[in-house]
Amino acid sequence: MSVHSSAAALVEVPRGLAGVVVTDTEVGDVRGLEGFYHYRQYSAVDLAQSRTFEDVWHLLLHGDLPDAARSAAFTAHTAGLRRLPAEVTAALPTIAAAGAGGNPLAGLGTALSLLGAAKGFRPVYDIDADRRREDTVVATAAVPTLLTALYRLEQGLEPVEPREDLSYAANYLYMLTGSEPDPVRVRAVEQYLISTIDHGFNASTFTARVIASTGADVAACLVGALGALSGPLHGGAPSRALDTLDAIGTPDRIDPWIRARVLAGERIMGFGHAVYRTEDPRSRMLRDIARRFGGPRVDFAIEVERQVEAILAELKPGRELHTNVEFYAGVVMELCGLPRAMFTPTFAAARVVGWSANVLEQAEDRKIIRPAARYVGPHAPVPVPTV
Amino acid sequence: MSVHSSAAALVEVPRGLAGVVVTDTEVGDVRGLEGFYHYRQYSAVDLAQSRTFEDVWHLLLHGDLPDAARSAAFTAHTAGLRRLPAEVTAALPTIAAAGAGGNPLAGLGTALSLLGAAKGFRPVYDIDADRRREDTVVATAAVPTLLTALYRLEQGLEPVEPREDLSYAANYLYMLTGSEPDPVRVRAVEQYLISTIDHGFNASTFTARVIASTGADVAACLVGALGALSGPLHGGAPSRALDTLDAIGTPDRIDPWIRARVLAGERIMGFGHAVYRTEDPRSRMLRDIARRFGGPRVDFAIEVERQVEAILAELKPGRELHTNVEFYAGVVMELCGLPRAMFTPTFAAARVVGWSANVLEQAEDRKIIRPAARYVGPHAPVPVPTV
Repeated sequence: MSVHSSAAALVEVPRGLAGVVVTDTEVGDVRGLEGFYHYRQYSAVDLAQSRTFEDVWHLLLHGDLPDAARSAAFTAHTAGLRRLPAEVTAALPTIAAAGAGGNPLAGLGTALSLLGAAKGFRPVYDIDADRRREDTVVATAAVPTLLTALYRLEQGLEPVEPREDLSYAANYLYMLTGSEPDPVRVRAVEQYLISTIDHGFNASTFTARVIASTGADVAACLVGALGALSGPLHGGAPSRALDTLDAIGTPDRIDPWIRARVLAGERIMGFGHAVYRTEDPRSRMLRDIARRFGGPRVDFAIEVERQVEAILAELKPGRELHTNVEFYAGVVMELCGLPRAMFTPTFAAARVVGWSANVLEQAEDRKIIRPAARYVGPHAPVPVPTV
Repeated sequence: MSVHSSAAALVEVPRGLAGVVVTDTEVGDVRGLEGFYHYRQYSAVDLAQSRTFEDVWHLLLHGDLPDAARSAAFTAHTAGLRRLPAEVTAALPTIAAAGAGGNPLAGLGTALSLLGAAKGFRPVYDIDADRRREDTVVATAAVPTLLTALYRLEQGLEPVEPREDLSYAANYLYMLTGSEPDPVRVRAVEQYLISTIDHGFNASTFTARVIASTGADVAACLVGALGALSGPLHGGAPSRALDTLDAIGTPDRIDPWIRARVLAGERIMGFGHAVYRTEDPRSRMLRDIARRFGGPRVDFAIEVERQVEAILAELKPGRELHTNVEFYAGVVMELCGLPRAMFTPTFAAARVVGWSANVLEQAEDRKIIRPAARYVGPHAPVPVPTV
């Protein structure tokens, strides 16, 4: 095949745009070699240790951590946005029926698209920064309500109305189960959610920014990001790591089970990361949370981690394969009573804040992201054959 | 602000990824300097002159123009996919109510997301090429049904059931109006649709490919593309060009109206294109179609074009500002009886085929598109303040 390039100046870059700088950002960064990531100027793990989800949400959107008064105001404001417009509530049974057993992120996207229409979201370039930010808050505040309602409808249960007196994390667990959540579980889920808000420039974040760069509304940006997150290559499926624990079953089976798979060239779910060359800082934090719960499941997970790292160091020397966020995230969510079908949706309930911060930053740029392709097909034109 | 870059090797490129080659493609190309664009190895305008929409759809998806037998088979197969699953039909009144007066592309995206769930679309990396292609056909075949049903519901009218004995274009007009469409109008719409199927690597096509690169399902890719298309910077709003004709009103007002706006630094809608430095080939074809209809509206549009080009050549010498696809697309769609609210949705009913071809090509690549950002905020970490 010959190459017939159209453009005046094409720029060659690595495949998949690896390492290509699309934008400057003040949202945060990942330092893979150091095993460190941050939101704004704060360590994400430190934020998860010491602040509420709402405080970190405020940090991402406004650029600063709120003082006590602003924290209370932001928390109350967002809590007041949890109820859905009637037309969205009315559509949920249909969305749940269409998506039952399928991709729960698609159901959330469908519902968010409806919410944006019902709330009159407008193109990000047609509104000011405050209105854009508020649209992201309106969308994010509704995500737990949408996710838990869709899940319960798929299970044949009635959705649970949101409560304004609970935190984002507590209300999420409450709407999921219908019962008053245990504070230890609430704080564990909250810390997981905080640690998952953002993580560098992944494919879903990039998708949100590409859509924002055209000036589309906040719902369109978030729905596109959810689409990208639903792709298997995006990574992140904490339920798979738990499936591995289940498949191994007992401590005596760890060594032969793992060894056989590594020698067969299979990946061990929950181990290894594209960016980190050290321990994943999220994994360390989540292991500490799991240890607070304790019990045989936690002991088993820690023993699996210990043996897998030893086997990987022996069979794949120099590769630095450690547990990633999936491994202990699955353990922690299980300890908190979250069903496996809700693991990735729970991730989305946090990441929507990171996407929002990126959308708001992109909207300030007002420059469309529009790369090029190189035509490599047969020379054109050839005459169109008659039928 | 200091710069703290995380990554080992960041690649600097032009802003907005302008000219950056994301992928090789055999779908088609635009040659801006020549005023020429093509699908596969055929001139898009030649295809619009001599083939059916279904033939060109087949070309984009399968890579070749069908002979008479395969054309008939493909046309019949796609016509059989126009009816919606019951759960999607049931949701349309709610989608129409939520989106009434808003962004019709969001309504289509919501409905397509539901359709994908109802039809059991699966991640593109988990299915073979035939199944992927069929998922795009299922989605595309439903687009006219969804668009016309949502439009009619918003107008307080009952949706019109699709007919299998009509072509894609004829059935679209039929479902929109509820009456047997005039063959001259059908062919004009069909030629417009063919000419709009693809046009290089625009932001919506790129969005579809980014989402496909994660392995997400076809619905997620198309919904993301619709989101990007809904952005004002994506370009393409044929109704705006008609609004200009209306605002000018009469031939004697053309010169002062245009001159005042050009001197005020305003853009004249329907003129100028990011890529073409000659006449837009789509504009020429659509002007010829408009001429076939004739009448005072067409004469007026041609006179506006003549005077605007002369004024722009005088006031902005060397800029080569000609009519773009918007200008005569609006005129042609108006002549064919399409309401202005349906101009951009009609564009989407064609472009979905181009997105599909790009999604299928991307899915063969199996490499995630994941660029980088450069952190430029304050140095991290600083200690997290206590509340």
